[in-house]
Amino acid sequence: MTVAYEGTLFLGWQIQVKSPTVQGEIERVLATMHHRKVNIVSAGRTDRGVSAMGQVFHFDSELNIPLDRWPLALNALLPDGIRILETERVSDDFHARYDARMKHYLYRIETGDYDLFSRNTTLQLNRPLNVAAMRQGASILVGTHDFTSFNSSPLSVVPNQIRTLFKVEIEEVDSKVLIHYYGDGFLRHMLRMITQTLIEVGAGRISSDEIYELLEAKHKEAVIYNAPPQGLMLVKVYYDKERIT
Amino acid sequence: MTVAYEGTLFLGWQIQVKSPTVQGEIERVLATMHHRKVNIVSAGRTDRGVSAMGQVFHFDSELNIPLDRWPLALNALLPDGIRILETERVSDDFHARYDARMKHYLYRIETGDYDLFSRNTTLQLNRPLNVAAMRQGASILVGTHDFTSFNSSPLSVVPNQIRTLFKVEIEEVDSKVLIHYYGDGFLRHMLRMITQTLIEVGAGRISSDEIYELLEAKHKEAVIYNAPPQGLMLVKVYYDKERIT
Repeated sequence: MTVAYEGTLFLGWQIQVKSPTVQGEIERVLATMHHRKVNIVSAGRTDRGVSAMGQVFHFDSELNIPLDRWPLALNALLPDGIRILETERVSDDFHARYDARMKHYLYRIETGDYDLFSRNTTLQLNRPLNVAAMRQGASILVGTHDFTSFNSSPLSVVPNQIRTLFKVEIEEVDSKVLIHYYGDGFLRHMLRMITQTLIEVGAGRISSDEIYELLEAKHKEAVIYNAPPQGLMLVKVYYDKERIT
Repeated sequence: MTVAYEGTLFLGWQIQVKSPTVQGEIERVLATMHHRKVNIVSAGRTDRGVSAMGQVFHFDSELNIPLDRWPLALNALLPDGIRILETERVSDDFHARYDARMKHYLYRIETGDYDLFSRNTTLQLNRPLNVAAMRQGASILVGTHDFTSFNSSPLSVVPNQIRTLFKVEIEEVDSKVLIHYYGDGFLRHMLRMITQTLIEVGAGRISSDEIYELLEAKHKEAVIYNAPPQGLMLVKVYYDKERIT
């Protein structure tokens, strides 16, 4: 299933004692429909405050409901800030996390006046940014790198912190700066730390060359920057199409 | 003062026993600042669910705060969904309602897929509309007319229901249809009733000619249409500039 949710309304994706979480709400509805506990597996967790236009999760079901009726059934029972967009039948060995080939995330920044109506999905920076310098800084991070400096996953838990950032595109739309990230996978806080570093470059507080030094440091305390979660959106998860039957 | 607010978070503008209302929240903060009750007067009420980018209100104050500090002082104490944008000093006889010359409202309709992130400010119609027919229908309503059919203010309370609609502009932006209304004043539910009537035309359920008949009927039960409030936004209130000192 593909699902959209507004991150500021939930305590993140992953189910936990405190509620509500997105996973918790969806599993609650699926349990009602199936009269049993149903576990769902997502393409990846999102932090508290991070939204999604196209998160993906899989689960097993014995129910015989036509594919196009599934979203209607779930949306009728889900809270306002979660919306099932699409349902697909997949092969038995499909796995929403392990089979994901690429993820597209978007970070939105308002550089103009405070915008009340985008506050839950856009960082209200409300100051101009040097986008050319940000693009130069971003180009240093594109490619396959050890991102140890640019994430908060402990090395003891995630020993391999090499990831591939396929592309970073920075758009200017009216007074908003939109940073599109495409990668094979992202570590905890990785995109928020990269984003705040690019904001520091765009604000002229550090040079784009310093990004190279931070990356090379491969040290957990090298990068002290972390942008707020509510600017971040999981746009789309890409799979090999043959896995969807 | 010019203020923005997200209508779905409040029970309308006007102070009442039930809370929270936008007026109630602002008066609460002003009372804290002034150590006395402060009454504010807006350019006009907005219904529950209707938002504003540029509502205007006036009040009297004995406080000696520089104009550019007022928004900071209020915003620090106001809830998340209300934001003071601007403060101006006006002449003693300025009146936010009586001196308003024109108001610009916007009604937003999503004709494409359901959009979770605009649900509080955009009607999720999620069906195509014939915008050319809607423009033709709107042109019938432009001008000075007796709008008795197109509002829910009782004639016993508002005997004169003649108003001037200066202009209606209908834009298409991606899959959104944006209806801009400019008028000298609007009666209760007038823009929501006009909007739903235009949607009926755009959906092919009534012809644009029928709008003429509904207008001519001048009867409270002629129009049975009323679009949901959350698509409606007060964009701007226009004043004669010489009133602002």
